[in-house]
This record gives sequence, C-alpha cells and structure tokens, in this order.
Amino acid sequence: MTYVPLDTIAGQLRNGTATAAGLMADAAARHDATEERLNAYRIWAGPRADVQARALDVLMGTGIDLGPLMGIPISTKDLYGVPGLPVHAGTDTEFAQEWQRPGPVMNRVLTQGGIVTGKTHTVEFAFGGLGTNPHWGTPVNPWSAPDAPRAPGGSSSGAGVSLAQGSALAALGTDTAGSVRIPASFTGQTALKVTHGRWSLEGIVPLSPSLDTPGLLARSIADLAFLFAAIDGGKSVGPASGGPRIGVIENIVWEETDAAVAANTRAALTKLEAAGAALTAVHLPDLDRVLDLFRRGGLAAPELRAFLDARHPERIARLDPAVMARVVAADEISASDYLQRRALLAEAAGTASEVFDRVDLLVSPTVPISAPLLKEVADPDAYRRANMLALRNTAIVNLLGWCATTLPTGVDGNGIPTGLQIIAPARQEERLLAASLWAEGVLGAGPDLLGPPPL
Amino acid sequence: MTYVPLDTIAGQLRNGTATAAGLMADAAARHDATEERLNAYRIWAGPRADVQARALDVLMGTGIDLGPLMGIPISTKDLYGVPGLPVHAGTDTEFAQEWQRPGPVMNRVLTQGGIVTGKTHTVEFAFGGLGTNPHWGTPVNPWSAPDAPRAPGGSSSGAGVSLAQGSALAALGTDTAGSVRIPASFTGQTALKVTHGRWSLEGIVPLSPSLDTPGLLARSIADLAFLFAAIDGGKSVGPASGGPRIGVIENIVWEETDAAVAANTRAALTKLEAAGAALTAVHLPDLDRVLDLFRRGGLAAPELRAFLDARHPERIARLDPAVMARVVAADEISASDYLQRRALLAEAAGTASEVFDRVDLLVSPTVPISAPLLKEVADPDAYRRANMLALRNTAIVNLLGWCATTLPTGVDGNGIPTGLQIIAPARQEERLLAASLWAEGVLGAGPDLLGPPPL
Repeated sequence: MTYVPLDTIAGQLRNGTATAAGLMADAAARHDATEERLNAYRIWAGPRADVQARALDVLMGTGIDLGPLMGIPISTKDLYGVPGLPVHAGTDTEFAQEWQRPGPVMNRVLTQGGIVTGKTHTVEFAFGGLGTNPHWGTPVNPWSAPDAPRAPGGSSSGAGVSLAQGSALAALGTDTAGSVRIPASFTGQTALKVTHGRWSLEGIVPLSPSLDTPGLLARSIADLAFLFAAIDGGKSVGPASGGPRIGVIENIVWEETDAAVAANTRAALTKLEAAGAALTAVHLPDLDRVLDLFRRGGLAAPELRAFLDARHPERIARLDPAVMARVVAADEISASDYLQRRALLAEAAGTASEVFDRVDLLVSPTVPISAPLLKEVADPDAYRRANMLALRNTAIVNLLGWCATTLPTGVDGNGIPTGLQIIAPARQEERLLAASLWAEGVLGAGPDLLGPPPL
Repeated sequence: MTYVPLDTIAGQLRNGTATAAGLMADAAARHDATEERLNAYRIWAGPRADVQARALDVLMGTGIDLGPLMGIPISTKDLYGVPGLPVHAGTDTEFAQEWQRPGPVMNRVLTQGGIVTGKTHTVEFAFGGLGTNPHWGTPVNPWSAPDAPRAPGGSSSGAGVSLAQGSALAALGTDTAGSVRIPASFTGQTALKVTHGRWSLEGIVPLSPSLDTPGLLARSIADLAFLFAAIDGGKSVGPASGGPRIGVIENIVWEETDAAVAANTRAALTKLEAAGAALTAVHLPDLDRVLDLFRRGGLAAPELRAFLDARHPERIARLDPAVMARVVAADEISASDYLQRRALLAEAAGTASEVFDRVDLLVSPTVPISAPLLKEVADPDAYRRANMLALRNTAIVNLLGWCATTLPTGVDGNGIPTGLQIIAPARQEERLLAASLWAEGVLGAGPDLLGPPPL
C-alpha cells in the first residue's frame, strides 16, 4: 500500500484521477484480506459504503463538491451514532435506536460526503487503554508476530488497526485518557486529542463527560491537519516555520519506561534539536497527586457508574470483568470525594499550565511500554498494571485540560511502533498541529519511517 | 422613615440637596435605635462608613462621579469579602484574611463609591431558609410582635432586617434556594435572584457552586432595577408597557399554603389581570421529582460537604446542629447519586422551560407560610418541616435555572408581609425587571402598601 496524503487524494477525486468507488473498493479488498486475523470492525459497512461511493462519484461528476471529506473512506469507533448502523459501545447488547442519531462531529463527516466504512471495535464503554474486549474479541495489533498477538491499544482499538489494515484512510475515535493516542502509537499511526469542549460530545456514548473528547487517527500529521480543518471548519494549517521551544517533561513520564521506547524518544528529540528546536527539561508540579487520583478511578469511574445506574443498571452485571471492577469500585466514591477530585484537578491544571509561559509545547513518550502480549494481560493483575502504565503519560493531558498529538518515532524490540507525544495548552490545536507538522517534516512521516506493517 | 427611591436620592446627592454623610448619619441613627432588639448585623461598620461618606462627599463636591451607587449606604451579607471586615459566613470562627478580598460584584459596589454599612447576619454557610443562627443569635423579624419574635427568613437573614430597620438603603445577599427572596418576603421588601452564572461568585464564601447566585434586596422593584443596572453595567430598564402573559403555577406551590398567603397572592393576581395581564394556569412537569431531590440534600449538601472536607474539616463538629444534620447526611450521597441528580435537574430544566413558549412569566406565592415563631422552630423536627416549606416555592427557580423577583402583596394574620414571586427564564433579568416594575405600578410599592414596620 503506497501512502498518498489525503489532500492529494482529495485533488485526485476532483480531477478525475481517482473515484470514491475505487478508493472504497481498495479499502474493501484490504479489509477482506486481513479482517479475519485482525478483527478491526464490530460492523463492516462495505456494501453500503460502496453504494454511497458510487452516488458520491455521480454527484462529483456533475460538479458537486460537498466538502474536503467527500469520497474519503473513514472508519468510526462504535461509540458514534451513524444512521442505520447499530451502536454497541463495546458492550454485548445493542443500544436503543436513538443512539444512531449523529452528533455534530459525525454530521460534519456525513454532510461532506465522508464515507463510513464501518464501526470499529472499542473497549467496553471506552474504559481501558489496552484495547481488550472479551465480548467481541480484541483486535490484533498488525505489527505483532502472527503466533504472538499483541494488544492494539485502546480504547479506540479497531481505529488504529483499520488504518494499518488499509480499510480506511482516516478514523474517528474518542479520547478520555489516551484512547486515540495509545492505539495510534501502538499501530504506527498519528492521532489528535482535542481540548475538552472544543468539539461536541453529542451523539457519542459517554464514558466521562467531564473528560471525554472526540479524536482523530490518521496515517500522518499532514492528514490529521487536513481532517482537523475539515471537521473544525477553519483553514488548514501549514508547518511552523521555525523550531519551537519544547519542554521535555522530566518527572514521572520516563519511569518504568521500556529501554527501546526511551531510546526512540530521545533519538527523535535529538533530531528535533538538531533541526532547531530549543529543548528544556521541565518538572510538572502536582503530577503525583493528579495520577494518584487517576488510579483511584479519577472522574471516569464515578461518571460511567452514574450513567449506568441511571440508564442501564442491568448492564453492570454483564460488563467485561476488567471494566466491571472499576465500575463496582466506584460505589465507594462519595459525592464529596468526587467534588474534591474536580477541585484538585482544576487547581492542578491552573498551576501546571504556567509552564506554557516558558515553552511552546511539552513532549513525552506517548506510551512508556510496548504493546503487551494478549495472553499476558488475560491475568487481571497484569491487566491492571499494564493498563495504568499504558494510560499514564496520555492521561496527564486529559486531566490537565490540554490537547496533544502523537507521531511515530520507530519500532521497539518487539517490532511494535513507538510514539512521541506533543502537548499544547487548551484550545491551541492550530499551533499544536503546525508544530507537529514541523516535527513530522524532521522525523519523517510514519509510512516512510516504519514501512508497511507485516500483514 | 419616608421612602425616597434610590434614583431620586442619587440625584439629590449630585445636586447637593443630600450628602452621603447625611444618609449615613440617618442610617446609623436607625441602626442604633433598634439593633439591640433586631440584631441585623454581625459587624456594624458605622464609624468607618461615616469616614468614607465624608470623603465621598468631598470628591462629589469637586465634580467626581464614581457611578450610580456613589454615597448609597448598602449592607452586605457576611459571605462577601470586603477589605478590612472579618468574614464569618455565619460560623463561629473567622475565615482567613484572603476571604476579605472583594470579588467582582463587591468591586462594582466599592469602585462606584457604594458605602458598606456592615456585614449582616446569615444562616451558617447560608444553608437554611428561616434565618436562624445559634452562634450569633437569630435576627428578629421587625414585623413581629415584641413579645413573640418571628423568623426573619434566610439565609440572608440580616439583609431584609437592615432594610426594614433603615440602616441601609439596599442590601447584598446570596440565593441558592430562596435566600434573598424569603427574607425579602418576610420583611416586606423586594428581591432579585439572578440567573446562575450571570454574576461571578468569586469573593463569596460558597454553599453550592452549582446553584449559588449573588442577589439583591431593596425597598422597591424600582430600586432593584436601579441597583441591577449599576452592578450589571447595562441600562436601567423601565416598566413594561403592557400586561404580560402570566402563567400561574397550579401544582405543588399552593399546597400547605397559609390561607392569608393564598388570599393575598390571589388578590394581587386579580389586580394584575384587571390591569391587563393575561393569566393562564400552568402545570410544571417533574416538580415532584425535582423537589424530592431537593429534600434529599439536593446539590447543596454534597457541595458544602466537599468544601468542608477539603478546606475546613475541623468546622464540621462545630456547625449549627440544624446545618450539621444535612452536612453529615451528605456522607451517604455517592458520586453516582450526585451525578444523577445533576443529570435529572438538567433534563427537568429543559422540559420545564418549554412553558416559556406560551407565557412570558410564571408566578407563585414567594413563601407559602408565615414567618414562624422563633420558639417554634427551636425543635429540630419543626425546624425541618418549616425550613423545607419556606424554601419550596423559591428553590424551584434555582433548581430549574431561572431568575426571579419577589414583591409585597400585603400582610397576613400575624402582621407578617406576604410576597408574590415573579419568575422569568434564564438570563431574562431585564424582561423580568420590566414586568416586575409594571406589577409594582399596579400593586403599589411596599412602603406605600404596607406602611412602616412596627419598630
């Protein structure tokens, strides 16, 4: 599969050198070739997408242009409402039909003629960072050896796999503590987690309304910038002209980090410095307290518990045991404790954000560990440890109210891609993407850097 | 004491027929004459206010005009930070000095040269509707017989008394479930509870940040409109030109209502109808569920509990037993329960607000009962019943996210004033005040309607 940037593809669709039906036929062929092993999709919507693609080609042939996403095959996490496609949110039971109603983000995709290839697998209620799901089977990381399947990362577990598989050219996910960045990092893709509140959560099954964000996965930062502009409605940003002031987080984010992950991250930072970035080591205050709160269930456990108690109490007994453990433990969280958690996070976010007076961006390894073997995390204790470690560096961004990208830095000893997390303050997505584009220019885009996954 | 409207007084200050020092001397004389019996103030700041008044007169004499509130004696509830005046928030212990820092609302008063006469008593942490306070003594309702003191209403208990006493010409309070409207109604004054979020809560000791609002008490709706414009920064509104479409709430708000309260409210509505208002009976959906939630501690009990747990755990054991009972019971409220309460209120507010497609305003009796005898509510069970009943009709407005005024309708068999609550949708304070001015024009302003309290 040769990588062609989305803006080039958009041009080809408009000058007649590509068709939506052709793109969708390629996507379907790639899906069919590997889906049995990879299991990216809860629901594959190929035939319906083919019908839509042909109709969009007819419209395009008559000069109709619905927008930048017209004719692009896009997979979507099974939390988003899409008319006519069942919603399971990773649970064992279909949600009521009202959940199929698209919210604002999905409407941006649909009204521009973006083609939904299907609903990708997710951790149940998006409550986990490894990508596991006992109800529907865990998608397989396409970079793992055939006889030793590894976790795809989550919770948008099928999203990264769909891109590596080639069944979609972009993927919609959600991110509450790392759920687009972890699967992107583990599968050699890029991702954007927007600031909480930037994009509406309407039409998306909730995990933690205080922290949930819609998010994007793509094959390159250039594609992310294209997608962001299409969905956000602004102009597409170009790469920043000079090297930014980068704060390298020094506390906590390097602890318990695999040697290969650390080495790839350091090597990437050395290249960025050589290209003109000014690196400074920074110590983020309060991280211990913030992460301790996160490990005790954060805001997500009580907020998911409230949603289930109010709307679906019957689902609690049927939850994935790994999810259920945290939902049941949330019973012990009092209203006062919950409100104190919110107050602590608000205070910590204010203090920590002062770092952006001195640097433009922060960086860390996206995930400190390699994608674990699926057989390893079948054990509940091993799952808990790996899950918390996988989420640690990305969760900081959600808890402190910021936005972030991830882009590939190489592969580790297991052949699994590693990623660099780039962080910007709240509502600075344009600046974040411009700097990430600059970094991608220095480091090379994922498809060039990593080559194709060993499918 | 002859009633002169605030805008007339503001004119007199500017044309030299009145002075700030003269107004403050009158206020101090009235304070001194009745304070021993009425107990409106936690801290009387008369001497300091006199110094300020003389300085403001000097400035005014040189042509300086700091704004509409310049030279007006204003009492303030002891939750607001005022430089140099201790904050107790109705507790037995002074708060740290940082709480004396004025927030935006107080700053509007101070920078316009409004004169703070002192800190008026409040229910401890503003958590009660009757106005009782065992730490500092409950202010006495000026309309009650000398040998049978009655509740002043609360939680802004000293605010209404200060106006009836004549020691201030306006009063700052706060309102989380009725705390400016109940004391205004019980003491023959008017009050405005603004929409949550309209005015900042900074610089005010919190009870329930989700529902707390700064609020105003004044001797007439005309004065309220003058104060609202001065603090909000917009133009002063005049009376609405025609009779509004008024929805008379028919469910719940008339239950367990004293006959005299009901009769005075009905008589006022008949006058408004005769003057051109179109009355319709309306049934508000979900009120049972909303008020059941309120009786179980609502959002205030867990939110106050979180503030105390995080900042002042040592104060819990020293709370007024009537306040402590609800703070301790909040221990039983889980995070899930709290979040479900918030979700229920948001949903109920959306549904109930549809009524404003059909009517401009809603009305109810402000408080369904007469101000109880202080000796009656010394019993915990009697307190609980009277408190919940006193708060019922006003709390609806806070819980559903609206704004409201109250104005006098007469006196009941105990000689205690009764009030009409006028309700408008969120952020419609200008329309609310215009309609309330129209209603005051029909019914007569409090000082004319009621005459002076039997001081």
